[in-house]
Amino acid sequence: MSETPRLLRALAGETLDRPPIWFMRQAGRSLPEYRELRTRAKDFMAFCFNPEMAAEATLQPMRRFPMDGAIVFADILLLPQALGQEVWFEAGEGPRLGALPQIEALRDAVEGSTAKLSSIGETLRRVRAELEPDRALIGFAGAPWTVATYMIEGRGSQREMARTYAYENPEKLDSLLDVLVDSTARYLVMQAKAGAQALKLFESWAENLAEDVFERIVIGPHIRIIEQVRAAGVNVPFIGFPRGCGALVENYAARVPVQGVALDTQASFAMGKRIQSGGKTIQGALDNLLLRTGGPALDRRVDALIEAWNGGPYIFNLGHGVMPDTPIEHIVRVVERVTGKPAKAFGAA
Amino acid sequence: MSETPRLLRALAGETLDRPPIWFMRQAGRSLPEYRELRTRAKDFMAFCFNPEMAAEATLQPMRRFPMDGAIVFADILLLPQALGQEVWFEAGEGPRLGALPQIEALRDAVEGSTAKLSSIGETLRRVRAELEPDRALIGFAGAPWTVATYMIEGRGSQREMARTYAYENPEKLDSLLDVLVDSTARYLVMQAKAGAQALKLFESWAENLAEDVFERIVIGPHIRIIEQVRAAGVNVPFIGFPRGCGALVENYAARVPVQGVALDTQASFAMGKRIQSGGKTIQGALDNLLLRTGGPALDRRVDALIEAWNGGPYIFNLGHGVMPDTPIEHIVRVVERVTGKPAKAFGAA
Repeated sequence: MSETPRLLRALAGETLDRPPIWFMRQAGRSLPEYRELRTRAKDFMAFCFNPEMAAEATLQPMRRFPMDGAIVFADILLLPQALGQEVWFEAGEGPRLGALPQIEALRDAVEGSTAKLSSIGETLRRVRAELEPDRALIGFAGAPWTVATYMIEGRGSQREMARTYAYENPEKLDSLLDVLVDSTARYLVMQAKAGAQALKLFESWAENLAEDVFERIVIGPHIRIIEQVRAAGVNVPFIGFPRGCGALVENYAARVPVQGVALDTQASFAMGKRIQSGGKTIQGALDNLLLRTGGPALDRRVDALIEAWNGGPYIFNLGHGVMPDTPIEHIVRVVERVTGKPAKAFGAA
Repeated sequence: MSETPRLLRALAGETLDRPPIWFMRQAGRSLPEYRELRTRAKDFMAFCFNPEMAAEATLQPMRRFPMDGAIVFADILLLPQALGQEVWFEAGEGPRLGALPQIEALRDAVEGSTAKLSSIGETLRRVRAELEPDRALIGFAGAPWTVATYMIEGRGSQREMARTYAYENPEKLDSLLDVLVDSTARYLVMQAKAGAQALKLFESWAENLAEDVFERIVIGPHIRIIEQVRAAGVNVPFIGFPRGCGALVENYAARVPVQGVALDTQASFAMGKRIQSGGKTIQGALDNLLLRTGGPALDRRVDALIEAWNGGPYIFNLGHGVMPDTPIEHIVRVVERVTGKPAKAFGAA
């Protein structure tokens, strides 16, 4: 069969009988087979840079669940590593980064950065070779502001330091964002050429930004990345995810030439419909805490989301990533409810 | 002069030549005279419960700055204390709470809780006696969900535990919110009778709530509080502040019978105007980090906010509280720019 994957049909603006589904962080810590696999790599970065293991992690949820999309197993902090800033993960505490390099050094590292990320291309090729043709492969990168917050603060945090930096050092921040725009565009072009059929920009920390700052450090860089990717002849659809930006996601949807806009947990039904009416596909926005809790309230919310949003182009997903301690039976229940296809809760995947 | 305070005119729906101004956390740690005063109380709770000191703290910024509103110096966690849950503050770490009492014990404590907060009434009477008649006195309480997050988690946090509790124990949470609705309504009636001319509900942690959950645990309790306050014959205007709820603030503005809706830092100009068009006064939303940074960007943003929103009823304020390390000269600069009146940056207030 040469059927276009359901996920890509939705991103092309089609309203479908039932929405395609995938979950942010569907691969990884919520799966026992991932936790087993993970023990074979010395650390998390090594795991991400190993195409055999990363491809296996990408495919694990595809074997259990009838997801319509596979997202390459990688991390948004592989890019700063490729640009010369040290990155490591402290068990139970999340990422740590070394000192922010000089902007000139980062600028000089842009051209070589994509080659340092070539193993992610190899992961994509391996996954694409194994994945059924009616299931889409998604590549991704962290968006510039979000990656910059880690580069500036040296860790995950409340990001107050980075938001202050945006006011106190606007030219320095703009230069850093430019470096990230250029290197991210190259990285995404490489991913598309390696088999990614859709590209997602994760702006995970779009919270608490004033409208004019959001325009400058989120909307502008996203537009420039997509322009650069298009200029390189890559035409795969984009999904933008400016998480936590509230009503500013409507500015984002109106201005950024993405095909899909991922909505977070607090997106209102009315806002989602307005974004659809503006010509974009929407994705989201089941609460990952409700997925973890399960029960009849979960069923009701799944139905309500589909009822509210599947009158237009819609991709079913969470508003944030799967929590590590989410019972697999809850994922099974939602995916079966949305797709009508069986999933595997127990035993080997 | 018997002129109605500018802040109350704005809350009555008037569009004014220039907006009234006050700042969340205008009293407190950003002022040296506060830090001096604070040393005289043994701890923060004792300070809040001392009418002489709390009144002085309320008035300190009014002597320095031509603010149109004074907000009573108190804390949203005085209420759980009055309901029988232990509350204390760890220096540099914020609030800590003892074990959550049984719901029956909390319910039994509602009737007596207002008497335990009578010193806040005394603070209000002292402030009102000193404050010029053209400057409004604002009372406040934490909104039920926000207070519940502290009561459930025992501290300030990411509130994931409380949001999970909302799914796992919906009936228990509803009972807790009911106790908080009833006790908060009584507390606010007392504040109005003691001289508060406007009442603000601080829903400081309205982030990351799905629309249906927001309806149940934010919108519903706010409506019930206002209905109870009105039923007690109190007609002062309400300002609601569902911070961090994104586009859901439009649901809030449409459903809750507040006169004013306080907007947070990420509120878009367009959304603010829609809320004004819906018949509400808006308040906000200068970034407190920009206030701390200062400079020409601060001036430009102040002008942009007034340009965008003072075509309708508007109260100038921050999107979040004044940061403790905000230079006083920056506050002076903004207040003088908005009011055209002189303020005092240095020396004794």
